[in-house]
Amino acid sequence: MDALETMIKTLSRLPGLGPRSGRRLALYLLGEKEKNFGPLVQILQEALDKVETCPECGNVDVQSPCKICSHPQRVQSELCVVADVSDLWAMERTHMYKGRYLVLGGLLSALDGKTPEDLNLSGLRQYMAGGQVKEVILALNATVEGQTTAHFIAEELSRYDVKISTLAHGVPVGGELDYLDEGTLQTALHRRRPLELVA
Amino acid sequence: MDALETMIKTLSRLPGLGPRSGRRLALYLLGEKEKNFGPLVQILQEALDKVETCPECGNVDVQSPCKICSHPQRVQSELCVVADVSDLWAMERTHMYKGRYLVLGGLLSALDGKTPEDLNLSGLRQYMAGGQVKEVILALNATVEGQTTAHFIAEELSRYDVKISTLAHGVPVGGELDYLDEGTLQTALHRRRPLELVA
Repeated sequence: MDALETMIKTLSRLPGLGPRSGRRLALYLLGEKEKNFGPLVQILQEALDKVETCPECGNVDVQSPCKICSHPQRVQSELCVVADVSDLWAMERTHMYKGRYLVLGGLLSALDGKTPEDLNLSGLRQYMAGGQVKEVILALNATVEGQTTAHFIAEELSRYDVKISTLAHGVPVGGELDYLDEGTLQTALHRRRPLELVA
Repeated sequence: MDALETMIKTLSRLPGLGPRSGRRLALYLLGEKEKNFGPLVQILQEALDKVETCPECGNVDVQSPCKICSHPQRVQSELCVVADVSDLWAMERTHMYKGRYLVLGGLLSALDGKTPEDLNLSGLRQYMAGGQVKEVILALNATVEGQTTAHFIAEELSRYDVKISTLAHGVPVGGELDYLDEGTLQTALHRRRPLELVA
């Protein structure tokens, strides 16, 4: 296989791409080598060299420990447990959470063969051993795997004197009731709350 | 902007990708640096170094002139004119055409501001000046731009003693009449042909 075939095959196997989009991407890059392809390779090489996994929380960043772990204003008493780095970034985009994070590195899943050994539990224990954490927020997917993992982590944390909370379930903002599944609507009804009237 | 942000932004702008899939791809690569990211950068660097645009036909290949142009068994009397390299590859996947190619580098388009100066007409003239070409096959999209370009190229070729043909229009193989547009069906009816009974 020559360099061109290898390139197309490799691109086609990237997540979100297929044979057609892989070919298209290859031709786009090769069509404007100086403008697009050269800079891309340079940018990727730099990211490959500089970006590291944070040894404390599991985030990826150009510095180690990451910007969040080394930020002096981050609240040390709150720990948000997420499955993946993408979830950590989703939480950060809310600009609401000011505590620290722990990336588990996945969720327990019998189907995918993910067991407790595959989760970053030692990292969690290390955080807890520090003694500063007062609340652990389990920000895990509202799926079977996410909830199983949440219960497992809660069990793990039962030996520490710490408040454990999870994200609220309910109607998504902007969501229409007609399109919601019964489970979400049941939870939203069950956890209904007094209407807050803005004065 | 640091190396990580630059990487995500650059990936998000690639054709077929967006902010979400760009982030996803970045995390996929950074998650397994040795297994996925390192090899990808190496493969792209190699393609960047080795793949060139063929000076004769406009194809991209690891050799110059490309494998098709330098192939001794390719019929020199047939020239297939295509808009882009992707169309050349599509033709090659049929394994039916054994002649040579010319990549125009686009189609005439008033909307996109593509004029005859943007097409590789000098390459076409060079082929024709060789005197070996007996048939030119215009394998261009069955769109307004494609057909405009086909007529323009036919005009250009009128000074040479050469047969000009285009791809057949009609019902796509596997196509259902009910889903076809009227134009295709009209053309297919107009160009109907005697049924060939296999003995």
